[in-house]
Amino acid sequence: MTDTPDFSFDLLATDGAARRGRVVTGRGPIDTPAFMPVGTAGTVKGMLPEQVAATGAQILLGNAYHLMLRPGAERVAEFGGLHRFMNWDGPILTDSGGYQVLSLTDLRKLDENGVTFRSHIDGSYWEMTPESSVEIQRLLDADITMVFDECPPYPCEEDEAKRSLDLTLRWAERSKAAFENRPGYGLFGIVQGGVHDHLREESARRLVEMGFHGYAVGGLAVGEPAAERNHTLEVTTPVLPTDRPRYLMGVGKPVDLVDAVERGIDMFDCVLPTRSGRRGLAFTWGGDLKLTNARFRDDHEPLDPNSSCPASRDYSKGYLHHLFRSGELLGWVLLTWHNLHFYQELMAAMRAAVEEGRFADFAAAFRERQAKPKQAGA
Amino acid sequence: MTDTPDFSFDLLATDGAARRGRVVTGRGPIDTPAFMPVGTAGTVKGMLPEQVAATGAQILLGNAYHLMLRPGAERVAEFGGLHRFMNWDGPILTDSGGYQVLSLTDLRKLDENGVTFRSHIDGSYWEMTPESSVEIQRLLDADITMVFDECPPYPCEEDEAKRSLDLTLRWAERSKAAFENRPGYGLFGIVQGGVHDHLREESARRLVEMGFHGYAVGGLAVGEPAAERNHTLEVTTPVLPTDRPRYLMGVGKPVDLVDAVERGIDMFDCVLPTRSGRRGLAFTWGGDLKLTNARFRDDHEPLDPNSSCPASRDYSKGYLHHLFRSGELLGWVLLTWHNLHFYQELMAAMRAAVEEGRFADFAAAFRERQAKPKQAGA
Repeated sequence: MTDTPDFSFDLLATDGAARRGRVVTGRGPIDTPAFMPVGTAGTVKGMLPEQVAATGAQILLGNAYHLMLRPGAERVAEFGGLHRFMNWDGPILTDSGGYQVLSLTDLRKLDENGVTFRSHIDGSYWEMTPESSVEIQRLLDADITMVFDECPPYPCEEDEAKRSLDLTLRWAERSKAAFENRPGYGLFGIVQGGVHDHLREESARRLVEMGFHGYAVGGLAVGEPAAERNHTLEVTTPVLPTDRPRYLMGVGKPVDLVDAVERGIDMFDCVLPTRSGRRGLAFTWGGDLKLTNARFRDDHEPLDPNSSCPASRDYSKGYLHHLFRSGELLGWVLLTWHNLHFYQELMAAMRAAVEEGRFADFAAAFRERQAKPKQAGA
Repeated sequence: MTDTPDFSFDLLATDGAARRGRVVTGRGPIDTPAFMPVGTAGTVKGMLPEQVAATGAQILLGNAYHLMLRPGAERVAEFGGLHRFMNWDGPILTDSGGYQVLSLTDLRKLDENGVTFRSHIDGSYWEMTPESSVEIQRLLDADITMVFDECPPYPCEEDEAKRSLDLTLRWAERSKAAFENRPGYGLFGIVQGGVHDHLREESARRLVEMGFHGYAVGGLAVGEPAAERNHTLEVTTPVLPTDRPRYLMGVGKPVDLVDAVERGIDMFDCVLPTRSGRRGLAFTWGGDLKLTNARFRDDHEPLDPNSSCPASRDYSKGYLHHLFRSGELLGWVLLTWHNLHFYQELMAAMRAAVEEGRFADFAAAFRERQAKPKQAGA
């Protein structure tokens, strides 16, 4: 492992606040802006890893909470880590589990030390702390470990947001102390603070003082209006160092990604392309299409005849409509695949737009095309 | 279309009653013994057509009943036929729908003309006759059309079996009259007669007198013991011409296929590899494995490290166990794929055994290996 590169970030180009960069990990590079498909329980639902890779995805997201409960972090370690377990060679970022255990509102108890909670699978008692979360992520062999944080709900009063932020910062310190530095691996801090500008600034500043390999913006994608999210990004990203990647957690729709890249974000994860795919919703350059709608029944055209993705190119919308109407598995597979490919196409287009200094034009044209189908109705 | 070959069957080798042959269709050859994956509603559940083709499958089975109801045979025709609709270039055989509509015991009425029934999807009334079934299959562009038949239940008294057989023969005559002969396309008759030897012989003889491109053995795989099924094959296949393919409908488990090839059968279809795959059952050379069983939780080995099938080779049994325990789509996909590949491997092994004149040894060794895991328990 002597030639494993250090975890790092190269900023290759900027255009306004938008950035084109490359994260270097021990398992390969991640071109940014990057979208990470979600593989919660050790699988991107319905997709073969080689299909995910063929979409252009360079990194997946896994989840410490789900994998800790089943099959168990130690078991995954015995299988050689999450990469070997799920047959994915590229880098993996793992969620710390904080968001998930704190979502178990009836089943959990939070204190300074961490969270005790009951498994959603079998009701068994568990404890999760900054130290145990980092250890679980080490057992999973995550290339990017996330600090254990508290993610307050939206809306959140300022004093509650401040209390939560302070706890998250103490947990970030403990997470960092627990994290074992190894070449090629990184630890990301998480900015909190609700939608209170000075709390976001304080959170970001104090995290940067601690020093992390990358910085996530957490506590968004929890129901806030897009304008509040965008404003929060505008006050947060300027506080973050330019030489570290910035990851907006849990966002979002295609236009949300464009909004966030425009405000200096480099990395994303979201269940939308996969979950929506299983529900019959296709994301396209021309906007969203609900393929279960009767208007697609006799549509002989594929989602994108020029795509390199078989799911987008080789099956008519009428056939996809038939699969969803018939409850056929292949519909879920094809539309998940199409959506993941579209998200990667979008990221590639944004990278090119930044490189070529035309991001604002790209973003304006993209928003206009995305808005059209909603006006036309569905 | 001037160079489309006539539908034909070449008998390439025999070993006892077992046959190695090749069906020629307008959309390519089918090496026999052949297994046809079931694609009831225009999709082999959970599988991409290219994955199915990569298993070695040369022909799929579709279903006139299901496709007639949804999306509709005329609609499929407007999409360019079932092949273009579902993105499968090879030959397709379609079930006539007889078996399905007659399974709707509470919803159907049978008379000389045909069957009136209510759709299992929306309760709408439909009529199906030998003529309409053949027309539906023509609209689907089936390479092999099946005559519309009545499939009696098991057990069935002799007089009832005789009545049903006579009706099926009259329907076969009408199906043949309705079938449009075209180069590369074939029509198969269906032998019925329950497990009554002289009725099977009579049914086969009278069908052969009418003349079809191939002959199916129907009315089995309906709950009869394997010994009765095998005996019925032994009295039936000698009546059938050697220069036409013989198709055993709806069978079966791996050992059932070996039993039937040993008795002169060339073609099969069955939902077992796909349906069992979705239920966590893997067919292997060493017998069946129920992957949901806890004994696979820490099994780091794949189903078959030497397989050319990614599903069999690239994922541990422990990972498959995890996917099934977690209700993950990918488990259904991978095990369906593995099972379809195993079935094709089995057919290829039987073809080689016939060619090399060692089918009896192959069959004996196969049965012994298949029986072992059941003795060991699971």
